[in-house]
Amino acid sequence: MSLIVFNLDSDASLFDRLATAMSANKGELEQRKFPDGESYLRVLTDCKLHDVVIFCNLYQPDNKILRLLFLASTLKEMGANQIGLITPYLPYMRQDKQFHHGECVSSRPFAKLLSGSIDLLITMDPHLHRYDSLDEIYTLKSRVVSAAPLIAHWIQQHISNPLLIGPDMESEQWVSEVARLADAPFQILAKVRHGDTLVEISPPELEPYANTTPVLIDDIISSGNTMLETIHHLTLAKMKRPVCIGVHGIFAESAFAQLQQFADVITTQCISHPSNKIDIALALAEATLSLINEKRDETPCKL
Amino acid sequence: MSLIVFNLDSDASLFDRLATAMSANKGELEQRKFPDGESYLRVLTDCKLHDVVIFCNLYQPDNKILRLLFLASTLKEMGANQIGLITPYLPYMRQDKQFHHGECVSSRPFAKLLSGSIDLLITMDPHLHRYDSLDEIYTLKSRVVSAAPLIAHWIQQHISNPLLIGPDMESEQWVSEVARLADAPFQILAKVRHGDTLVEISPPELEPYANTTPVLIDDIISSGNTMLETIHHLTLAKMKRPVCIGVHGIFAESAFAQLQQFADVITTQCISHPSNKIDIALALAEATLSLINEKRDETPCKL
Repeated sequence: MSLIVFNLDSDASLFDRLATAMSANKGELEQRKFPDGESYLRVLTDCKLHDVVIFCNLYQPDNKILRLLFLASTLKEMGANQIGLITPYLPYMRQDKQFHHGECVSSRPFAKLLSGSIDLLITMDPHLHRYDSLDEIYTLKSRVVSAAPLIAHWIQQHISNPLLIGPDMESEQWVSEVARLADAPFQILAKVRHGDTLVEISPPELEPYANTTPVLIDDIISSGNTMLETIHHLTLAKMKRPVCIGVHGIFAESAFAQLQQFADVITTQCISHPSNKIDIALALAEATLSLINEKRDETPCKL
Repeated sequence: MSLIVFNLDSDASLFDRLATAMSANKGELEQRKFPDGESYLRVLTDCKLHDVVIFCNLYQPDNKILRLLFLASTLKEMGANQIGLITPYLPYMRQDKQFHHGECVSSRPFAKLLSGSIDLLITMDPHLHRYDSLDEIYTLKSRVVSAAPLIAHWIQQHISNPLLIGPDMESEQWVSEVARLADAPFQILAKVRHGDTLVEISPPELEPYANTTPVLIDDIISSGNTMLETIHHLTLAKMKRPVCIGVHGIFAESAFAQLQQFADVITTQCISHPSNKIDIALALAEATLSLINEKRDETPCKL
C-alpha cells in the first residue's frame, strides 16, 4: 500500500521534492477546460486502496477550490483510502471574526467545505489569531508545521549578531520561538491597525541593540506596510539595514520592490516567489507521513 | 415576510427585471478582494425570517462557486428562511457519465455541493441527457423552466412558414415541444460526434420543405460545429437562409462570427450575449414564486 501524491495546479519543483521526501509515487492527472469554463478532470493513476496526498497550494483559492473538491471526490470514487491535502498556505484564516453585522466569517464555511471532502490537512503556520487551533473550525485531522525551526536555522547560517523583531503582538508567537531556537534576543513592537492597509508602530527601546542586525519576522507579508513602518522606525533609531523574513510572502502590488529598497527580503517556499530562500519540503513531508501513519494506526482492521 | 433577491456577479438588467417580476426587494452586498485573492463578502440587508433568492448565473462557474457558498452560509447565519438560487445556466450537467476510468463525473459532486447550501434551485432547460431529472443528483427542491413556450412565441411573431430542425436526437425533446406550441412542422437530424468538436450530420429528407425558413433549435450552442454542419447540409439542399436558436449561447472562440455568416443567430438571455432576443425574466420569476410558495406551504407552523 504505497503512497501516491498528486500535484493540482501547484509549484512543480516543490512537488518533486515533496514526492521524493515522502518516497511517494507521483500520480498523473489529465485536465482541460470546456468552452463554458467548466473543468474536465481525470485521474490516470489507479488509487484503489492507496493513501493519496493532493499537493494543492490554496493561495489564490477561489478558482482552485472546485477542482480540488472534484479531485477528492473522484479519488474516493476510485476507492482511495485516506485523502490528505498539503497546502503550505491555508487561506481564509484571517477572516475569523464578524466586525460588522452581515459579514461572512469565511474561515468557517471554508473549513466546513474542506472538512467534508478531505481526511487529512497539512499546512505551515496558518494565521491562528482568534482561533487557538484548526480544530475549532476544521473537523478533519490536521497537522500544523512550524516554520520556526527552518527560519532559526537560516538565521544562524546567514546572520551574525541578529536582533529578532516582531512587528506586532500577533507575531510574538513565532518570533519568540524562532529566537529561542536561534539563541538570539528579540523585541516585539506594538502595531495599531487602521483599516486593511494603514498601520502605525509604537516605539520600542532599541538603543542597547545598535550593533545587531535587525531581523523582522512575521507570518504573512501582504501590503508590506507593517514591515515598512517597522523599518522606518529602525532607520530613525540608526539601526543597521534589516532583514525581513516572512513565512508567507503575498506581496500585494509593489510591496516587494518597496521593501527591497530598505531591507533584504527572505521568505519560505510557502508561496512561490523570487524571495524564497527557505526550503519547506522536508518539514511538510515528515508531518504528512506522520499524520498518515497516525491515522492508519487508528483505523480498525477490515479483514 | 417579503422576498429579498440578491445579485451575485450576474447580469444587472436581468436582475432588475427579475426583482420587479417577483415584487421582491433588492438586497445589497458589499464585496472586495484581499491581496491573497480571498473574497470579502458582507450582506447589508437584514434577512432574518425572510425568504431570499440569489440570482447567480453559474456560467463560467469555477470562480463563482465559493462566493455563492459563502453568501448562502452568511444568509443562513443571519436567520434567513428559505434560500433559493436562480441560475439560468446550470453548469456541469454535460458531465453525466464516465467515458474513461478515472474521469470525474462532475455533475454529481457539483450537485452535492449546491444541495448542501441551497434550499431551492430554479434554472432554464438544464442539459438533461443521461439523467431524466435533476432529482437524480440534486437533493434540494428544483424547478426547471422550459424555454420552449418563449421560443415558440418568438418564432410565431418573427417567422412565417418555419420548418423547425433539431440537429441531433438529443435536441428532439425541446424541438418537438417548440413545434407543438408554435404549430409548425419539424425534422430531427442524426449527429455523430467525434471528440469534443468534430461532428457529422446524417442527411434528412428536406425536398418537401423548399419554401420554408429553416429554424435550427438546440439547447446549447458551444463550438457551433453542430449548427454549422447542419447549415452546410441545408445549403446543399438549397434551403433558405436559416435562423439558429439556442437556449444557452456559449459561443466558444469564433463560433458566433462563423454562424452569422450563414444564419441569423438568436438566443435567450440565459447567457448574456449580443444575440439575446428572448426575454426569460417573467418565466423564471413565476417559477421561483411558485416554488417558494410550494415550499412554504409544506413547512409546519412554528408558533
